[in-house]
Amino acid sequence: MLKIGIIGAGRIGKVHLESISYHVKNATVVAVADPFMNDETRAFIEGFGVAKITTDYHELLNDPEIDAVLVCSSTDTHAAISIEAVNAGKHVFCEKPVDHSTEKIRAVADALAAHPTIKFQVGFNRRFDHNFAAVRRAYDEGKIGDAHILKITSRDPAPPNPTYIKVSGGIFLDMTIHDFDMATFLTNSDVEEVYVESAVLVDPAIGEQGDVDTAIISMKMANGALAVIDNSRRAAYGYDQRAELFGSKGMVATSNDTVSSAVISDENGVTGEKPLYFFLERYMESFSEEMRQFVDACENDKPTPVGIHAGLQSVKIGLAAKKSVAEHRPVKLSEID
Amino acid sequence: MLKIGIIGAGRIGKVHLESISYHVKNATVVAVADPFMNDETRAFIEGFGVAKITTDYHELLNDPEIDAVLVCSSTDTHAAISIEAVNAGKHVFCEKPVDHSTEKIRAVADALAAHPTIKFQVGFNRRFDHNFAAVRRAYDEGKIGDAHILKITSRDPAPPNPTYIKVSGGIFLDMTIHDFDMATFLTNSDVEEVYVESAVLVDPAIGEQGDVDTAIISMKMANGALAVIDNSRRAAYGYDQRAELFGSKGMVATSNDTVSSAVISDENGVTGEKPLYFFLERYMESFSEEMRQFVDACENDKPTPVGIHAGLQSVKIGLAAKKSVAEHRPVKLSEID
Amino acid sequence: MLKIGIIGAGRIGKVHLESISYHVKNATVVAVADPFMNDETRAFIEGFGVAKITTDYHELLNDPEIDAVLVCSSTDTHAAISIEAVNAGKHVFCEKPVDHSTEKIRAVADALAAHPTIKFQVGFNRRFDHNFAAVRRAYDEGKIGDAHILKITSRDPAPPNPTYIKVSGGIFLDMTIHDFDMATFLTNSDVEEVYVESAVLVDPAIGEQGDVDTAIISMKMANGALAVIDNSRRAAYGYDQRAELFGSKGMVATSNDTVSSAVISDENGVTGEKPLYFFLERYMESFSEEMRQFVDACENDKPTPVGIHAGLQSVKIGLAAKKSVAEHRPVKLSEID
Amino acid sequence: MLKIGIIGAGRIGKVHLESISYHVKNATVVAVADPFMNDETRAFIEGFGVAKITTDYHELLNDPEIDAVLVCSSTDTHAAISIEAVNAGKHVFCEKPVDHSTEKIRAVADALAAHPTIKFQVGFNRRFDHNFAAVRRAYDEGKIGDAHILKITSRDPAPPNPTYIKVSGGIFLDMTIHDFDMATFLTNSDVEEVYVESAVLVDPAIGEQGDVDTAIISMKMANGALAVIDNSRRAAYGYDQRAELFGSKGMVATSNDTVSSAVISDENGVTGEKPLYFFLERYMESFSEEMRQFVDACENDKPTPVGIHAGLQSVKIGLAAKKSVAEHRPVKLSEID
Repeated sequence: MLKIGIIGAGRIGKVHLESISYHVKNATVVAVADPFMNDETRAFIEGFGVAKITTDYHELLNDPEIDAVLVCSSTDTHAAISIEAVNAGKHVFCEKPVDHSTEKIRAVADALAAHPTIKFQVGFNRRFDHNFAAVRRAYDEGKIGDAHILKITSRDPAPPNPTYIKVSGGIFLDMTIHDFDMATFLTNSDVEEVYVESAVLVDPAIGEQGDVDTAIISMKMANGALAVIDNSRRAAYGYDQRAELFGSKGMVATSNDTVSSAVISDENGVTGEKPLYFFLERYMESFSEEMRQFVDACENDKPTPVGIHAGLQSVKIGLAAKKSVAEHRPVKLSEID
Repeated sequence: MLKIGIIGAGRIGKVHLESISYHVKNATVVAVADPFMNDETRAFIEGFGVAKITTDYHELLNDPEIDAVLVCSSTDTHAAISIEAVNAGKHVFCEKPVDHSTEKIRAVADALAAHPTIKFQVGFNRRFDHNFAAVRRAYDEGKIGDAHILKITSRDPAPPNPTYIKVSGGIFLDMTIHDFDMATFLTNSDVEEVYVESAVLVDPAIGEQGDVDTAIISMKMANGALAVIDNSRRAAYGYDQRAELFGSKGMVATSNDTVSSAVISDENGVTGEKPLYFFLERYMESFSEEMRQFVDACENDKPTPVGIHAGLQSVKIGLAAKKSVAEHRPVKLSEID
Repeated sequence: MLKIGIIGAGRIGKVHLESISYHVKNATVVAVADPFMNDETRAFIEGFGVAKITTDYHELLNDPEIDAVLVCSSTDTHAAISIEAVNAGKHVFCEKPVDHSTEKIRAVADALAAHPTIKFQVGFNRRFDHNFAAVRRAYDEGKIGDAHILKITSRDPAPPNPTYIKVSGGIFLDMTIHDFDMATFLTNSDVEEVYVESAVLVDPAIGEQGDVDTAIISMKMANGALAVIDNSRRAAYGYDQRAELFGSKGMVATSNDTVSSAVISDENGVTGEKPLYFFLERYMESFSEEMRQFVDACENDKPTPVGIHAGLQSVKIGLAAKKSVAEHRPVKLSEID
Repeated sequence: MLKIGIIGAGRIGKVHLESISYHVKNATVVAVADPFMNDETRAFIEGFGVAKITTDYHELLNDPEIDAVLVCSSTDTHAAISIEAVNAGKHVFCEKPVDHSTEKIRAVADALAAHPTIKFQVGFNRRFDHNFAAVRRAYDEGKIGDAHILKITSRDPAPPNPTYIKVSGGIFLDMTIHDFDMATFLTNSDVEEVYVESAVLVDPAIGEQGDVDTAIISMKMANGALAVIDNSRRAAYGYDQRAELFGSKGMVATSNDTVSSAVISDENGVTGEKPLYFFLERYMESFSEEMRQFVDACENDKPTPVGIHAGLQSVKIGLAAKKSVAEHRPVKLSEID
């Protein structure tokens, strides 16, 4: 039974608490720390029988009973807390992105290199989604042959508050970063080069923050495949999350999930449901699955499915994408320090 | 918080225990009774923190702390235990079918009539399935107008052991009974007349037991709609569960659920996944939802969504279907005592 | 080059004229006869370069240059003209139904028996539809194994004028007859028994004519398979024409044709086009294909794909269906004289 | 009745001859010229009742009876013959591309400017395809709002002979040119900038010819929308031709055409047919429709649907794409002379 402490009791911390309690065997949450702990959150956590609730995450790092921590705090603290936790001998599950700075991510990598028995996983939950996992499985099983063209469609149902942009690092670090990781996952390859064609078509206020809200990102993968991601901050029909991998032997493609398969035929046409709107609804099961695999890695001394390399790679692609927009040219990942 | 006792710790009893523990708020399982309790089952139940584990269900009926019981014992005991429980003042959730005999079901109804504050629900879980619920919702919202034709396709992935037939009451009482209830649910109407065209095409041993394995059941509903169910004991591609309701304004139809939406295009064609194979996998979420609504009815003094009338109606249709096969003619429900 | 005369220049006669002229090699229409020939029709026919236009079909039968005739006159004249044509040594393509009376159809069969070199084809064009032909092909290729359950959905976009009912012989002889033929075609088997559950739900005036407008027709096929047809005189979303054949190894199913594959996703849902509305639009290509095969049979002395047996069988099933409604019981085809 | 002469009796010239004869009212082919006329071709043409068959196209230009010519000769002669025809007072339908040189296309434009009553249409038949036309129609009707992201998938079933590359001008001028025109058609906008990420993944011999066989082409449209085309010279599952237009109000997307809608469910999965394999099969109806509209423009003095601007624009995009590959950077259309 893996004893877990959660650092950060915001939305995603609560998701993991619920997931582990209900859907993950061999693991239990024994402590939660959050500097802004309030009564409502405390009551929620107590509802899951968690014994230790604190405002100071050091209490978790110092608790010898705790085997692993989930770093669910704000992004700017991910790297520092992860390093502390690794040094304290805890396995670490760190939410994405590990950091916006490659230097800090490399510092985490260095800490991990110094503690080879410590497990570390980055929270790229979409890899564990039933649809995307099926794409990768088809590829691994040789059903589509060599990868030639990967297409990812990723459109949010609604744009964030423009003021969030400054904190988030912009579309490529807060939204596309998931797609960058997905591109490397689905092709099983790093990225070599990135080019972005982008625009502000959804909300001028996003443009005023120096960001874009619509983008087509072309990539050359290290294994020779080509990839393209299209992003929009707002799809009128909901959350659009699809992938298509085309190769020498064929293609595998996924469509969106819906609440039901019901289709109504009437004088207006033949109408199915809109995609699930909210990311927690769409990806709920993937949060359980990533946690199951993290627990399995810790308990059975296996490699985690998403290591620090993935955490670094995705941020480097994001920074290359930003540079491509700024300099209006293709940017090689080798240019990103 | 509704305190629940489960009577019968077989497959379906365990499903409810897990469902309530993980997915139903405001309810907790405090006791489980099973005459054949063994160590493995006991350990399973203890894993959910259930305090009382016994071989005698009377302990549950006599326990004043218990508000409601789930009758998950063998079919031939459903009615008697339900009546005892009702008389003991417990709300009752009874697995389907309530009984194979209409007389015994009416005895349950009589007990309920004598205890008007007691809640009673029959375990027709498919009503709570996301797809079928969406069909009924479309109908209730007037999207298809008046109901004209209902079509239900219900095919199992594999036939039961032929020896099971004698116990089960045959295809119409063990398999189609779900579809009969679905027909009344989706059209929001009782059945008036039944005609069956049937055959033994899957397994001659089923025929030797006096049963059929393939059937087309036509029905006239009390509200004037026509309905048809087609059944097979074996679909090579898995568990086929679809419905289509056609009316004056249009049609609503559902398709099967799959593990993922991945579709592979290659030289063999464009291939999606087979339907989910196993009924627990296919209908898992519906077991949670039926229980949520049962708990809600008990806690907030609402009518349950599936009462004793549905339990009686479905069995009467099943008996009419058997009579139709035996006498090779349409049979009115009014002929069934 | 097969020289063809068309008897009857109504809608279907014109369809064949156009089909042959544009889409059938090795055949040419050299004459058209219609007792009600008017200027507009004459101009239409002349537009295709047809040399002989007359009001008397005997001119066609007496013309030694003509190899084959298409009998596209009113239903009550089909049998008599067909017999005359056969006796005149012409190959005959006869529109469906051959007649409403089995006696007259048998008279055609007798004439054919007396002229074994004469080719005779009934105009069941839907057998040549790309979708339905694909179902039969899958069956013939063994892809679904033995046939167990056939389901045909056949719903018209709008009911006929109720006064037409008297002439047409009712729903089973004017509409379902196509589905009856389809049932025998798709299962490659005759019908043994028919039971109809029916209602008047679309238009009370149809009921006043003694007919029904909504029906579920169950059948037992001679090869042991079960079949069901559901009919409605009015589908709000257009012309609904689907089939599904289920067997020991799997299932083959078709969906409706649309003008385009365009699907719109917006805040209302994910909406595709309605089925093609009009039977000529939906089945246009099948009219060409049936004619190509008729011409091929005549030119190369092959059996035609739809002979007099199919013409008789479909009418017998229709009469059995009427009898089933009248007597409210299953009717064996052997009861129909 | 528009009297048409066809210049060039290769594959596409024959397609137009058959189309006009069978599917276009108000037009007739009266002459065909081809320098390499052989007996087989002559017989084919005579089969359609064409009176004048010659090796010298000047005979057509000099024939006062001929109203319009179709320029279906080899690409390098399109511009010169078109100019001659325009100067001879003939309406011109010119196959695509008009030429590989923008200078020569502008010369055609100049000739047209000098003859304002002459109609000129470029053979971008895919605009008339039922699926792509439906996308544009949805956009024109405001169903998707402002255009934000256009995605075109265009993959051939098999690569051309590598030796063809030299003649054809490479993938961007022989294959993608259709997609470039489609991009401007579907967004109703010119292109402003092009960037290509490309690779040789299908056939090294194509790379040896200095061309690529796999490409992702990003574009910024003049109206602000972004667009992306993905190309492959070989899709194992056949000819893949799809488009998806995403905008402020929603998305419209098309899928591939198949021979039938039949889907087989068996132990291998749920399998539909592959896309139509051959472009003539896939786009046959579009050839008739483009011709109908050309004839309508000539007969009724309307603008043609695809003028010389489209002919020039598509080639300029193709040249910009080649330059982008050569210089590995985004290229503005204004850079192309």
